[in-house]
Amino acid sequence: MPNYTAPLDDMLFLFEKLRDNKNYNELEKYNEVNSDLVKDILGEAAKISENLILPLALSGDENPAQLENGVVRTPPGYKEAYSKYIEDGWISLSCDPKYGGQGMPKTVSAFFDEMLSSASLSFKLYSELTIGAYNCLLRHAPEEMKDKYLPKMVEGKWSGTMCLTEPVCGTDLGMLKTKAVEQKDGTFKISGQKIFITSGDHDLTENIIHLVIARASDSPPGTKGISLFLVPKYIVNDDGSIGPRNGVSTGSVEHKMGIKGSATCVLNFDEAVGYMIGPKNKGLNQMFTMMNLERIVVGIQGLGISEIAYQNSLSYAKERKQGKTNNSKSTNGADFIIEHADIRKSLLNMKSIIEGERALCFWLSQQTEVSLYHSDENIKQEASDYVSLMTPVVKSLFTDLAMEITSDAMQIHGGYGFTKDQGIEQLYRDNRITPIYEGTNSVQAADLVFRKLINKNGDIITKFLKMIKSECESKNENVKTFSKEINYYIDILSKFTDWIKEKHTNDKDDVSAAANDYLKTLGFVSLAYSWIKVLEVSYKEHETNKKFYDDKINTAKFFFQKILPRAEFHYKSAISGSSNIMNFKFN
Amino acid sequence: MPNYTAPLDDMLFLFEKLRDNKNYNELEKYNEVNSDLVKDILGEAAKISENLILPLALSGDENPAQLENGVVRTPPGYKEAYSKYIEDGWISLSCDPKYGGQGMPKTVSAFFDEMLSSASLSFKLYSELTIGAYNCLLRHAPEEMKDKYLPKMVEGKWSGTMCLTEPVCGTDLGMLKTKAVEQKDGTFKISGQKIFITSGDHDLTENIIHLVIARASDSPPGTKGISLFLVPKYIVNDDGSIGPRNGVSTGSVEHKMGIKGSATCVLNFDEAVGYMIGPKNKGLNQMFTMMNLERIVVGIQGLGISEIAYQNSLSYAKERKQGKTNNSKSTNGADFIIEHADIRKSLLNMKSIIEGERALCFWLSQQTEVSLYHSDENIKQEASDYVSLMTPVVKSLFTDLAMEITSDAMQIHGGYGFTKDQGIEQLYRDNRITPIYEGTNSVQAADLVFRKLINKNGDIITKFLKMIKSECESKNENVKTFSKEINYYIDILSKFTDWIKEKHTNDKDDVSAAANDYLKTLGFVSLAYSWIKVLEVSYKEHETNKKFYDDKINTAKFFFQKILPRAEFHYKSAISGSSNIMNFKFN
Repeated sequence: MPNYTAPLDDMLFLFEKLRDNKNYNELEKYNEVNSDLVKDILGEAAKISENLILPLALSGDENPAQLENGVVRTPPGYKEAYSKYIEDGWISLSCDPKYGGQGMPKTVSAFFDEMLSSASLSFKLYSELTIGAYNCLLRHAPEEMKDKYLPKMVEGKWSGTMCLTEPVCGTDLGMLKTKAVEQKDGTFKISGQKIFITSGDHDLTENIIHLVIARASDSPPGTKGISLFLVPKYIVNDDGSIGPRNGVSTGSVEHKMGIKGSATCVLNFDEAVGYMIGPKNKGLNQMFTMMNLERIVVGIQGLGISEIAYQNSLSYAKERKQGKTNNSKSTNGADFIIEHADIRKSLLNMKSIIEGERALCFWLSQQTEVSLYHSDENIKQEASDYVSLMTPVVKSLFTDLAMEITSDAMQIHGGYGFTKDQGIEQLYRDNRITPIYEGTNSVQAADLVFRKLINKNGDIITKFLKMIKSECESKNENVKTFSKEINYYIDILSKFTDWIKEKHTNDKDDVSAAANDYLKTLGFVSLAYSWIKVLEVSYKEHETNKKFYDDKINTAKFFFQKILPRAEFHYKSAISGSSNIMNFKFN
Repeated sequence: MPNYTAPLDDMLFLFEKLRDNKNYNELEKYNEVNSDLVKDILGEAAKISENLILPLALSGDENPAQLENGVVRTPPGYKEAYSKYIEDGWISLSCDPKYGGQGMPKTVSAFFDEMLSSASLSFKLYSELTIGAYNCLLRHAPEEMKDKYLPKMVEGKWSGTMCLTEPVCGTDLGMLKTKAVEQKDGTFKISGQKIFITSGDHDLTENIIHLVIARASDSPPGTKGISLFLVPKYIVNDDGSIGPRNGVSTGSVEHKMGIKGSATCVLNFDEAVGYMIGPKNKGLNQMFTMMNLERIVVGIQGLGISEIAYQNSLSYAKERKQGKTNNSKSTNGADFIIEHADIRKSLLNMKSIIEGERALCFWLSQQTEVSLYHSDENIKQEASDYVSLMTPVVKSLFTDLAMEITSDAMQIHGGYGFTKDQGIEQLYRDNRITPIYEGTNSVQAADLVFRKLINKNGDIITKFLKMIKSECESKNENVKTFSKEINYYIDILSKFTDWIKEKHTNDKDDVSAAANDYLKTLGFVSLAYSWIKVLEVSYKEHETNKKFYDDKINTAKFFFQKILPRAEFHYKSAISGSSNIMNFKFN
């Protein structure tokens, strides 16, 4: 089983030193969320992740969630751990105090998301979708619905799901077939089949609150006729007590390559009672509130799994002796593999990606809070646009790079990486869902190039590029070397952006074919931007903590020398266009 | 379960049209191996792969090989299939007729290796190591040993293994601890533990012939004291009959992420009777005869798994409807995903890599035969040097790209790619061993930059670059466009090579850190070189089969536009050197 120690130093560094975001600091509601408090919270979060949740990873992999006589059983240990988890209030960390939450900002809860993902993604998913459903209800449900359902969800006694996918529609939700027939009392009867429903059923909570998209009888076809419904597993009585079982049953639990502890269900709705959330036919927009926040969390899952893969690779590399290095001083026997250049390179590849991602994610958490709570509408909108722009990038880039990192971790472990003993192969399998769910990474890329670069508020990408270019202009001589380097790639990204915009008008297939490459280029430049912010602090405060800041500076160097150049290949490959691709005649 | 149809058209195209290799055509022993014969053989090979072996893939994954009361049981169906397989003489395809083989060249048997890898890698491994052991014995064993063991191995009644790895040594065999104590009768008693032994024990054959490296009592430490021994599971009597059980037992069978049908064993040798093969203390060289051929086959495994992943992605993309394309004519519902630009790009990415690899592999098979059998020592040596140069490239590049291809296949399948139903995730898991075994891909890269570029016969890489540059000079105007493109990358590769050579003398760590990048650059250029050869034929013979050759030309275009540019990133990333990497202080 892999070991894990939450990277508290790095998290606290970001919280303390990268918080000079004026807009974020203007949010009065977080005035009291200071470093001392955050340090305490993250310390406790680390303990629960390391001690309570980490051991569940292996249990879940060896004893997958399964359907027994119509009931889904979670793996051994999950129930006890979940009880403790909600008892200590962890589900409520980022929730509104009005419903019993602790009201912590994403700048704190995102770190906890990362820790949980490192410890056991399967276990995490049981509460993650509750938060997703909570966020959706908080924004779109009528007050009485919120009052009825949210407190129990925040408490963790009830969990949540998002029911979108059907056998014929995953990416393309306009094709959905689930029907909602309105009843005289204003409720609906929901019928249809939903698949790939994470935590669709399980034995951890008293009730499950399904958020289901369906088409009302008199709604138009396509995406414009989709409404969102709340469908509880058990009907909730007016007094809040649990009533009779609703018409939802579990058809099967998927057998998957990874995250086996998580119950991925086929759910059959058979005239189940449902309550419409928000305005009719606006269900897809409402669901996207949930989806967008959730997509960022999926990116964080990739980051968390990368972190534990890195930690275990590092410790294995320090223990395993094999081969002599080029400058070996050993006279008999081999050197530790951490002395070998290519192993060191792999480790730094992981580390520089992980720390860059964590910094980018922290910036994104700040923007998210500003987008939700700033009093100035313009500032709020700008932040919202940045979040919207970076959501597909974080989701796709972090999860793809997590595959690279877990794969490199296997290579470092050699044959021991491929066998079950060390648990490395499980990280690789568990992470493999992240580039698929919540919209495949190609769907994210299409979302980026077709909907996010330019929207009704204007040319978001140009604003973003201008902003990072200006923030990367440093007065510090040391940082200037890096600024020069990032400017080279910002220029490439600008050219790439212009190319995309031009193709928007005259060849959309060129844009589609280039979408993944564009996302990667924007992603690597964004990571470099985060590193510049880290470097700025590292040089400025170098004297106060030399060891820590030297580590940062040299990790950044690696990123700029070895990783950032990838951006250019993506540009070059993409601008050759798509005519050959579109004209190709497949056999 | 994935479907599979052997790509006979492409294989026969290579055999018929890319065989204008003067040196290869001078090999008299293959005079009679003409297109008609090869067509018949490959046709039968396709049948057995598609009908007999393909169904074993799922069986092996669901019922892993396991140890029961000291005996290893193969998955259901393996025994019956294996009997049929050897009855029809498939093991003997490439073996010497002197020992009962069919004497087919690698230009034929490599295609069969590919088909078997597509159908079931786990099943294939049970005979693959027999051929490895056969090759090693053929070259290094005394005549009486060959007469005693080879006929039964060629027949498939006895199988073979290669026992190298021990708990403390995988890459670094000089550290091995297995001991060989000479007896009065000239035999040895072998004691020690070997791990990760593929097909180390199983129930398919009457006997298993282990080739074991061990250190004789009076041999020096390190790699110079390693000798090679033949250690049968059952002692073979002088009359060839099976005698008593030898002192080899199976400690355990590994639980692995993939190739679960293959028994990966811990073998304990306890004063087992062993017979020395070839000269004492030269065991590592002898084993490397086997290893090098085996490494090429591992590359072919990657190719085979890529092919079946591609075929199933293509057919799924033609069946699955999701979303509208940019130029959709569909008025209701979605388009087939094969109409989407990014899916088409993924498919062409697979196809252009696969067909380029197959062509490169065919060239390598020709070189291998020339290196073994040409009458002119200089020609033989040159071919041998090319094989030696390209072995790590084919092993690493093909297996890494097979991960990319099986991963893209999962993405095309979406959620269905991650569940067990379609068998796509199994391809991904099965292939994941290929970048690890027979020396990790980083070990291959180190072998390339430190031992293969320049050897005692001179500057092999310069000779190779000169050769491909001259062969890429085309008189055909159409091909010239591609030649110009490859020349740009050959120049980059030359600069990269010069950089590596310079660093050899003044900073070996720079070479180590750049090794994987260099391998990739050489690999992509070599694939482009293969494509140029294919293009030469395609334009020349275009009129004879327009559909086939248009397909080739457009696939080549994709490779040159979208994939070859990767070579440049690797160069740029690598030449930033290793000082930051080597000086980094890991926590």
